[in-house]
Amino acid sequence: MAQKPSIPKGTRDFNPEQVAKRNYIFQTIQKQFETFGFQPIETPSFENSETLMGKYGEEGDRLIFKILNSGDYLNKVNEVLYAEKDSNKMTSEISEKALRYDLTVPFARYVVQHQNEIEFPFKRYQMQPVWRADRPQKGRFREFFQCDADVVGSSSLWQEVEFVQLYDSVFSALKLEGVTIKINNRKILSGIAEVIGASDKLIDFTVALDKLDKIGEEQVKTEMLSKGISKEGIEKLQPLFTLSGDFKSQIEQLKSILSTSEEGKKGIDELAFIDNAITELGLQSAKLQLDVTLARGLNYYTGAIYEVSAPEGVSMGSIGGGGRYDDLTGIFGLKDVSGVGISFGLDRIYLVLEELNLFPETVTKNIDVLFINFGEAEALFSLKAIKELRLKGVNAELYPDAAKMKKQMNHANKREIPFVVLVGDNEMNTGVYTLKNMISGEQFELPLKELIQKLT
Amino acid sequence: MAQKPSIPKGTRDFNPEQVAKRNYIFQTIQKQFETFGFQPIETPSFENSETLMGKYGEEGDRLIFKILNSGDYLNKVNEVLYAEKDSNKMTSEISEKALRYDLTVPFARYVVQHQNEIEFPFKRYQMQPVWRADRPQKGRFREFFQCDADVVGSSSLWQEVEFVQLYDSVFSALKLEGVTIKINNRKILSGIAEVIGASDKLIDFTVALDKLDKIGEEQVKTEMLSKGISKEGIEKLQPLFTLSGDFKSQIEQLKSILSTSEEGKKGIDELAFIDNAITELGLQSAKLQLDVTLARGLNYYTGAIYEVSAPEGVSMGSIGGGGRYDDLTGIFGLKDVSGVGISFGLDRIYLVLEELNLFPETVTKNIDVLFINFGEAEALFSLKAIKELRLKGVNAELYPDAAKMKKQMNHANKREIPFVVLVGDNEMNTGVYTLKNMISGEQFELPLKELIQKLT
Repeated sequence: MAQKPSIPKGTRDFNPEQVAKRNYIFQTIQKQFETFGFQPIETPSFENSETLMGKYGEEGDRLIFKILNSGDYLNKVNEVLYAEKDSNKMTSEISEKALRYDLTVPFARYVVQHQNEIEFPFKRYQMQPVWRADRPQKGRFREFFQCDADVVGSSSLWQEVEFVQLYDSVFSALKLEGVTIKINNRKILSGIAEVIGASDKLIDFTVALDKLDKIGEEQVKTEMLSKGISKEGIEKLQPLFTLSGDFKSQIEQLKSILSTSEEGKKGIDELAFIDNAITELGLQSAKLQLDVTLARGLNYYTGAIYEVSAPEGVSMGSIGGGGRYDDLTGIFGLKDVSGVGISFGLDRIYLVLEELNLFPETVTKNIDVLFINFGEAEALFSLKAIKELRLKGVNAELYPDAAKMKKQMNHANKREIPFVVLVGDNEMNTGVYTLKNMISGEQFELPLKELIQKLT
Repeated sequence: MAQKPSIPKGTRDFNPEQVAKRNYIFQTIQKQFETFGFQPIETPSFENSETLMGKYGEEGDRLIFKILNSGDYLNKVNEVLYAEKDSNKMTSEISEKALRYDLTVPFARYVVQHQNEIEFPFKRYQMQPVWRADRPQKGRFREFFQCDADVVGSSSLWQEVEFVQLYDSVFSALKLEGVTIKINNRKILSGIAEVIGASDKLIDFTVALDKLDKIGEEQVKTEMLSKGISKEGIEKLQPLFTLSGDFKSQIEQLKSILSTSEEGKKGIDELAFIDNAITELGLQSAKLQLDVTLARGLNYYTGAIYEVSAPEGVSMGSIGGGGRYDDLTGIFGLKDVSGVGISFGLDRIYLVLEELNLFPETVTKNIDVLFINFGEAEALFSLKAIKELRLKGVNAELYPDAAKMKKQMNHANKREIPFVVLVGDNEMNTGVYTLKNMISGEQFELPLKELIQKLT
């Protein structure tokens, strides 16, 4: 019954080195989350289907992994529907649960469900896997982690300021310097749509504008035309394509473009507030940049929109994003709770740190010292030292079998263990341990106390 | 479209306090795993169904959560089979993936799949959730974490010794003193079955014996009789029910019971080896106990069997278990790789620590200091200090809105924040911050440098 083992496409095994590197990123992010006052929550891997379905658009619904009901699940399906053999209709009959698709909707569900236990404003972070039945490709997986921080219950713009600082703090702590935090505001996009007479086509308009980087000005205009935005409207957009200068000067240019839109002006004020605060407070290593083309396709953003791109020279999509949503919990019956949050793209951050060689060497260190096994009595003698070493926090182990010396030394080399200890008759009689530095080749004969000192 | 939000039965939300306490347990276990030389791996949440199905017995197969195929999954089902409307037959047609049921089978799959990259003996740990469609009840969930440490590629008994030490180290590090590490050996159970002429009924025999604690001697005998074990055989068991004394004296009694069974004697030798080593090395706070009734129902154990019970006075099932399996990877085509491992029951350990009040107070501490928000200029002035504090590792935040003082102070109290800082006109003019100790009520006026000193 031997099977050739494999894993489902789009999923991954992580070996010890990869886990250690991923944990380094998680821990660094977590540390900053907590320094900023965010608290962790966790939600179940699967939710009731109705919690998730309809929250991510039609494509999202398709990409949600559904869990088959247990037991005789077909028994409950009525004959007429069964005879239709329609997969779409069948799904809700034979599946009641679905795997988490992102962390935001479960968070909204959590806030509504636990609203009476929560002290608002509530700053939560969450680092858990999500699943999407997307076509796997380079850098896109069917199971991946999201790391989110959100605040709900406050519409203060200081939150927006804090999230810029949080991005800066995390990437600075990761020694990933020179990332660009791009910021925009949904109200500016609405304002522009209003000014060009396309308020009813806001989504089409933003989707097209979002592609400016990729397809260029002419094709963006063509797409807008094809979506029914007027030629005159598109002409009014011209100043947008040639926005230039620093944050403050772009703000000035936007003021003139949006002078007739109340909503647009509100968006400008918000961006100016954030820019002023960040200018006062300074950033450690990131840059803050205004990007009016930023829309992030997500319909629920209502104010600030963030996206972070890797330092120049590293070709990688966004490594983080987020924004403000004024009514996320409304879908679960809790009105008027404003939220704002950001997300970190673990997998892409991993690739960037790898490419720039930014993982500290100590991250992948595993065992400090291996005791060579020369037989039963020697092993027991060794384990007494190992016990003491472990109590001092030294990662120590005994080679399990009294195998040939060469085999054991090879094992130490392959695992890149820096020290081995040799215990033979001589050592047992005199109560010393022979410590060998595997890099320099140096050897020391040490009683237990000094051995511990040497290794701690 | 408001929905009353809920989560699937058997699943849980974890609030910040619960996450912090769970992480404390995870981190303590992880630290000991690493000190003992174990390295982390992670496997996907779902596996190909054929990897899991058939590995946990019939009941296991039923309890595995299956994932519905994406797209028009019914289209591929042939008409004849579809017409049968048989849930069992249908499942493999419309589902190719299933959620992880434990960490052991995925680990075996991992070892076989990556055998050429692995340096054996391979000591791995894994802490990930698993899912079972079990009927939820107190302490039993449909989603729960397992924390496993296993070694594969060595049949050395030193591993068994190490796992006893590892249990002791973890529970000692958790300050959970007085746990009992029960140990048995499958070879002893086989030997007994042989001696009583029931070798062909080993499973029935061990299942019945395993219940001794719960249902008592008489009912165990009745069950054995009903399974076809002879009356004479059961009479021979009598000395087993009256085993007494310490580990060494029980070993002596077993020697006489099992004198005619080669396998039984081998099991005794193994247990004696472990007991001798542990006696020499000592344990920090746990007790090692021989328990010949221990079988743990799992068919793949071939040598040592472990189970850990909570300290006396705490009513809780086992909080850990494990054992040796000689051929786990064989199901995936890799023969003769012996393994041994143990598992920690996170949820039960959590309940025990809670009951005994053993979580350190620092575990649930969140934010160190809240800055009261008196308005825009004051907030900005505050954020300058907050930035410096965070760089020093202090968890600090600004109340986001310039709300009434009382509301902000209440917020600090509800979240049990130990310090607040007040910044008004006076503070901004003189460059000092007013620090208030929320417990003692004391107030200090401090320039930034001293404020940082006070809070770090």
